Amino acid sequence: MTDLLWQKSDTVTDARVMRFLAGDDVILDRELLPYDIRASRAHAAGLHRIAVITDEELAAIVRELDTLMTAISSGEFVLDQRFEDGHSAIEAWLTERLGVAGQRIHTGRSRNDQVLVATRLYLKDRLSELRQLCVSAARTALNRAIHESDVPMPGYTHLQRAVVSSTGMWWSGFAESFIDDAIVARDLLAVVDSNPLGTAAGYGVNLPLDREHTTRALDFARMQVSPVAAQLSRGKYELLVLGAMKAALADVRRFAWDLSLFTTSEFRFVEIPAMYCTGSSIMPNKRNPDVIELLRASYAVIAGASVEIESTLSLPSGYQRDLQYTKGPALRAIRHGLDTMVLVPDLMAGLVWHESTLRNAIEPAMYMTDLAIERAAEGVPFREAYRTASDVSSALKGRTPERSLAARTSPGGAADLRLDEIRARLEQA
Amino acid sequence: MTDLLWQKSDTVTDARVMRFLAGDDVILDRELLPYDIRASRAHAAGLHRIAVITDEELAAIVRELDTLMTAISSGEFVLDQRFEDGHSAIEAWLTERLGVAGQRIHTGRSRNDQVLVATRLYLKDRLSELRQLCVSAARTALNRAIHESDVPMPGYTHLQRAVVSSTGMWWSGFAESFIDDAIVARDLLAVVDSNPLGTAAGYGVNLPLDREHTTRALDFARMQVSPVAAQLSRGKYELLVLGAMKAALADVRRFAWDLSLFTTSEFRFVEIPAMYCTGSSIMPNKRNPDVIELLRASYAVIAGASVEIESTLSLPSGYQRDLQYTKGPALRAIRHGLDTMVLVPDLMAGLVWHESTLRNAIEPAMYMTDLAIERAAEGVPFREAYRTASDVSSALKGRTPERSLAARTSPGGAADLRLDEIRARLEQA
Amino acid sequence: MTDLLWQKSDTVTDARVMRFLAGDDVILDRELLPYDIRASRAHAAGLHRIAVITDEELAAIVRELDTLMTAISSGEFVLDQRFEDGHSAIEAWLTERLGVAGQRIHTGRSRNDQVLVATRLYLKDRLSELRQLCVSAARTALNRAIHESDVPMPGYTHLQRAVVSSTGMWWSGFAESFIDDAIVARDLLAVVDSNPLGTAAGYGVNLPLDREHTTRALDFARMQVSPVAAQLSRGKYELLVLGAMKAALADVRRFAWDLSLFTTSEFRFVEIPAMYCTGSSIMPNKRNPDVIELLRASYAVIAGASVEIESTLSLPSGYQRDLQYTKGPALRAIRHGLDTMVLVPDLMAGLVWHESTLRNAIEPAMYMTDLAIERAAEGVPFREAYRTASDVSSALKGRTPERSLAARTSPGGAADLRLDEIRARLEQA
Amino acid sequence: MTDLLWQKSDTVTDARVMRFLAGDDVILDRELLPYDIRASRAHAAGLHRIAVITDEELAAIVRELDTLMTAISSGEFVLDQRFEDGHSAIEAWLTERLGVAGQRIHTGRSRNDQVLVATRLYLKDRLSELRQLCVSAARTALNRAIHESDVPMPGYTHLQRAVVSSTGMWWSGFAESFIDDAIVARDLLAVVDSNPLGTAAGYGVNLPLDREHTTRALDFARMQVSPVAAQLSRGKYELLVLGAMKAALADVRRFAWDLSLFTTSEFRFVEIPAMYCTGSSIMPNKRNPDVIELLRASYAVIAGASVEIESTLSLPSGYQRDLQYTKGPALRAIRHGLDTMVLVPDLMAGLVWHESTLRNAIEPAMYMTDLAIERAAEGVPFREAYRTASDVSSALKGRTPERSLAARTSPGGAADLRLDEIRARLEQA
Repeated sequence: MTDLLWQKSDTVTDARVMRFLAGDDVILDRELLPYDIRASRAHAAGLHRIAVITDEELAAIVRELDTLMTAISSGEFVLDQRFEDGHSAIEAWLTERLGVAGQRIHTGRSRNDQVLVATRLYLKDRLSELRQLCVSAARTALNRAIHESDVPMPGYTHLQRAVVSSTGMWWSGFAESFIDDAIVARDLLAVVDSNPLGTAAGYGVNLPLDREHTTRALDFARMQVSPVAAQLSRGKYELLVLGAMKAALADVRRFAWDLSLFTTSEFRFVEIPAMYCTGSSIMPNKRNPDVIELLRASYAVIAGASVEIESTLSLPSGYQRDLQYTKGPALRAIRHGLDTMVLVPDLMAGLVWHESTLRNAIEPAMYMTDLAIERAAEGVPFREAYRTASDVSSALKGRTPERSLAARTSPGGAADLRLDEIRARLEQA
Repeated sequence: MTDLLWQKSDTVTDARVMRFLAGDDVILDRELLPYDIRASRAHAAGLHRIAVITDEELAAIVRELDTLMTAISSGEFVLDQRFEDGHSAIEAWLTERLGVAGQRIHTGRSRNDQVLVATRLYLKDRLSELRQLCVSAARTALNRAIHESDVPMPGYTHLQRAVVSSTGMWWSGFAESFIDDAIVARDLLAVVDSNPLGTAAGYGVNLPLDREHTTRALDFARMQVSPVAAQLSRGKYELLVLGAMKAALADVRRFAWDLSLFTTSEFRFVEIPAMYCTGSSIMPNKRNPDVIELLRASYAVIAGASVEIESTLSLPSGYQRDLQYTKGPALRAIRHGLDTMVLVPDLMAGLVWHESTLRNAIEPAMYMTDLAIERAAEGVPFREAYRTASDVSSALKGRTPERSLAARTSPGGAADLRLDEIRARLEQA
Repeated sequence: MTDLLWQKSDTVTDARVMRFLAGDDVILDRELLPYDIRASRAHAAGLHRIAVITDEELAAIVRELDTLMTAISSGEFVLDQRFEDGHSAIEAWLTERLGVAGQRIHTGRSRNDQVLVATRLYLKDRLSELRQLCVSAARTALNRAIHESDVPMPGYTHLQRAVVSSTGMWWSGFAESFIDDAIVARDLLAVVDSNPLGTAAGYGVNLPLDREHTTRALDFARMQVSPVAAQLSRGKYELLVLGAMKAALADVRRFAWDLSLFTTSEFRFVEIPAMYCTGSSIMPNKRNPDVIELLRASYAVIAGASVEIESTLSLPSGYQRDLQYTKGPALRAIRHGLDTMVLVPDLMAGLVWHESTLRNAIEPAMYMTDLAIERAAEGVPFREAYRTASDVSSALKGRTPERSLAARTSPGGAADLRLDEIRARLEQA
Repeated sequence: MTDLLWQKSDTVTDARVMRFLAGDDVILDRELLPYDIRASRAHAAGLHRIAVITDEELAAIVRELDTLMTAISSGEFVLDQRFEDGHSAIEAWLTERLGVAGQRIHTGRSRNDQVLVATRLYLKDRLSELRQLCVSAARTALNRAIHESDVPMPGYTHLQRAVVSSTGMWWSGFAESFIDDAIVARDLLAVVDSNPLGTAAGYGVNLPLDREHTTRALDFARMQVSPVAAQLSRGKYELLVLGAMKAALADVRRFAWDLSLFTTSEFRFVEIPAMYCTGSSIMPNKRNPDVIELLRASYAVIAGASVEIESTLSLPSGYQRDLQYTKGPALRAIRHGLDTMVLVPDLMAGLVWHESTLRNAIEPAMYMTDLAIERAAEGVPFREAYRTASDVSSALKGRTPERSLAARTSPGGAADLRLDEIRARLEQA
């Protein structure tokens, strides 16, 4: 490993301790490294503007950072155990190539604001992806609602057949929900879109750093002004991002639960493309909807990571090493969440309903609510209508799913899905 | 207990089962009941607009709902074990007084959308309170930052004395953080501000309910269109609200941790008003900062409630009775969170710094970073500057906290706190 | 409220602060009060043994504590907002009746060890109940396994029909699982069965308290020796108890999920007694398995409480007021968990299988695994056997569920359930 | 990648889906692979005993499994992305080398019981390590208590100086706590020590598998009889193990919090060896107790993993693919927990107290409790003694820490630490 910048000469190191300190940092930092490089460029340019580094030094630093970025993209450079973490790798790269000028990059910044700014850029990109994936899921669901608005299916409460519903209602429900999720991600993006670079170790620095410049250069919407606030946001912003991810994955989980039921032999409402299924190692007859089950289970990853992060944040203000433990769960959960979300639109698009099975699952008793409400609307008190309805199965005979759906005229109901309203909100999400 | 609307005559009930089913619903519903009454008025007006109830019936229902609201306010009516829940209480009240007309109120709605709309109105009010309390905490912190911008205090990392900081930096950090929290609450308010009333049991209803009217009447920003989406939002919206609460309480927790340390005999940086302290039952010498400790512990209540809610949401779409278990933790956590937040501004305002103790805690070694950066800015490579600085304690002698702070000229640093920028953002929060 | 023992005369109190400090303590302490009284008796007897109180004082204290216990049982005394908490109530009761002698009871103890010992006695009783309820559930399941060992039912993996199973296998699976849970509770009972009384505020006391006597008098298996350890166990023991509760409720949750599926119209495998069902307020046709759903949801209560408790325990050693926040979630979760468990045995006993539906759900493809393994046992490599089996649906024709089950001769399989082995372990649980 | 055993020829695969399905399985399985090989040997021997494989086949399989184990130990074989998971790797290895005989190994087992048995063996080893590490921490703490029983230090409640304590009390507190943790691990080991091999996909198998033999061969204390129970224990056992880990890490967290405070400039009670500290990248003056902070933060990893696992277990009985998501958090948390625990004994051994600082931190007011109790013991009612004591600071003058400790004669107190009792319990832990 390269020398540790902070290492005192009189320190005896212990392999177990060093391993414990290092953790998975270099692996985790692979995702952050490009952002760290980008922020390093901005920091160098900022230092140049206040004359801490010369024109030549800036040009050299920028050139070598670009080279490093290329080397990462090509796979020529891999962040690994040779380095303590991504920050050390950048410094080592520059110092090896540029000597003194390479060392200058660290002037006026601390690893505290360096990791904050790299993580912030990362969070912004991921939130943006989350928003787009939620929009994409919502759009797919909405399109299916448009094309299958009037296919009857049973509506369940308590997993018991309740009233007639339609695939249009089912799809539009998920469309509207994923729009909410997209909006949550969009709004949160505005909150976290702030530049912590220049806050140093959490108390500012005795240099007139040009933070306005780095804010613009890194395309942040605003500066995170207070260095103390920058430290307070560590982990807190990650938790907010995971909160947005949880909203989306909560909908994925219920969607996957529906599919898990709907693909049983007992329901058999829907066919999912074979690519989402696996076989069994012992049972030749099986085709298992593994992907559906893993989509369902994905929420747990985010939930666990959230608890992991928030458990570490019971701390006084200022940087504490505990905060480094927010990195692993945040990155792991965000990656997992997006890997989950990216599968959803295609899966939605690929579902094939068994329309006759859906229809056959609609029993006469499911018209009883219709009947009770009709009578209530005619003036029979609902409670009495309700009790009467229970008895008159004869009155249910002529009814069809179509008639039931056609009468569902309340806004959002099968006869008035208001898909245009949903679409209008989607356009803003 | 009053008759259960849904009870079949052939059902044998068991006391343990009934108790298990009821849970704490009537207690919890005390907070929701006023919202349920308000939504019931809107629903009645909506039914009147589509001629399901007459002018006279509407007038009578509105009158009796108003009477009930008054009786609740005066303490004359208490929701208790006589009722299954708040919904039943309203229906019983109306039916007793109005007979058939009282029963009409239930036409076209289900307890599913009834609880949703009451909870939604409740969530809106609480989010609004949260936002205001965050604004209030931020404002208090900002005011203190303005008045105490240049009192030196030690800045810590790893709980070790690191560099000179100032009370101005400390206060402005919490100000900026609570502004974030206020904005999170504000944005979320826009997301949840949607009307689920009229979605019935989750599949709409065979009546042309005037949902635009109830949306306006209840002062919702928009209709939650899809009945399926309304069900999907149950618990999910509550989780989002708890997420906003957690952001605020995460800052409270770190603030309380600071105070818990700062009030030890060892630090003795700050005095908190006696009203936040208690004595000991066995140790006459003690004055304990109990309120600080409970503020610190409050995050846990929200964290636990979040896990409780999200654990129940692993379900297919549509209403399941499990969802009722989202009510208890949501109400308990929201109430607790607000009871916590409401104490923060006054506590902030009441803190008294021991300025000389703060100053005495600043050791010469805390100027070493200043020195290293000065040298780095003069052209010594930071790494070398860093190593050199470790040795020259002589160069640290003449330095003062004031000089150190005056040089902290990066935006957000002690010499350029940018409180105006922070205030400008506060105005929008 | 009665005077606060610790109150300084110069303290101005604020209603919001007092309410925040009090929390729900008096409500929560209703469950702990009998244990607090019992421990107070033991403490008084201990003080008497070291001559801190006289014969007469002891007799009077014991008499009045007995009177209080009777008053609580009869409902004559109710712990309410007049008191700060249960400890204050006991002291007030004794002091009112006995004057000076009543005050003596507090000699040599702190509220810190007082709440610890009352909670410890409570935890022991609840763990014991948990163990018994797990045994009872296991016994019921085992009895049903004995009587229905050979009713065929489909065995699922991935919710897909996989191979033939039997009700005997299903019941014996839950029996063996609940035995594990009982053993976990039993073993944990031995760990927590230790007496913290006499550790005062966490650092012992300058009296020769007869802790051996109180240990025996309160029927503890051992003394918790170290006062520091006593404080470290606060919350930690509660978490361990919730861990045992979670093991049991994890099984309840999967059991309830099975029933939730098995009672759908699509599966219709089982009938649950009507007492576990409710109707719908809007849909007259519904009979909803609400109790099943709430049993399923109960795990969440324990999970949330665990996170709530563990989140508060991020503290230095010694008592901190945060620890008081472990009481609410612990009591709430334990009560809820036991209220859940108590329903399980009767529910198990009341289930009625639809045997023909179970049988009809067994499809020929479910014999393919049998066939593949037969061939593999005859020497065809399993992989080849597996591939061949997929094609020969003709070879599956003559097979019956009974033949499939009869061949399941591995221990634990349908043909060798080993219920005696399971019963033998139950006897020790 | 090798062929997938379960793959249907008509399945189109998608890279994103395959990656999502694979997850980190091959990385995770590196820890499980040696156990999988060991269990495979036992399974082969079991198949041989029922004549499914011949003497020669068994010999060949055992030989090749041994070779594989050697290749893994030497680093010659690395489980990587060429394989779907560890199970596939074993089968591929055998089939390549042994052809048909290699395929036989899969007869009568499923990946469901294969992963269960490998994980079970892994859990046993890890629990055993946990127990030993708790014993080791307890022993170190106990030894220090013996040697430093009477060094005075302040005892804190609410982080406020409360009464005199001693390093002996502090160490013995942690000793007794870690003994509890060791016992929890020990008892749990007995619960999980059961053999799931032979339960196939969760419904047994149509072969007379010699499960008694595999149980003995793998050194399990008993057979997990029911295949349904085996599936129900998936994740549940992992949660129990994490529960035991949490008990230990809860103590580590409070221990680390103490050290984090005790190493501040303000307390300066203790010196930790330099090997547990790091420097700062920006502040040359810093020596930061990073290891202490990471020890403190480690609890969060286990807490997060527990929530992650339990969130996935909301499922019907039988295998579901969701269960695979229990592997990652379980392995990650267990490894992290043990990596944490392994540092504790040496850290304990290396602490150096600043005895004079400890002593100087003891203020006269800390004798007030002693005084109040003395007076109470002399007959002054405690409440009055308490109030009087507050005033008589004169009576506190002559007191010393030694006198205060010498009077702490209650068992467990400084004058009667009962280290022999604690040691006796340690011997059984």
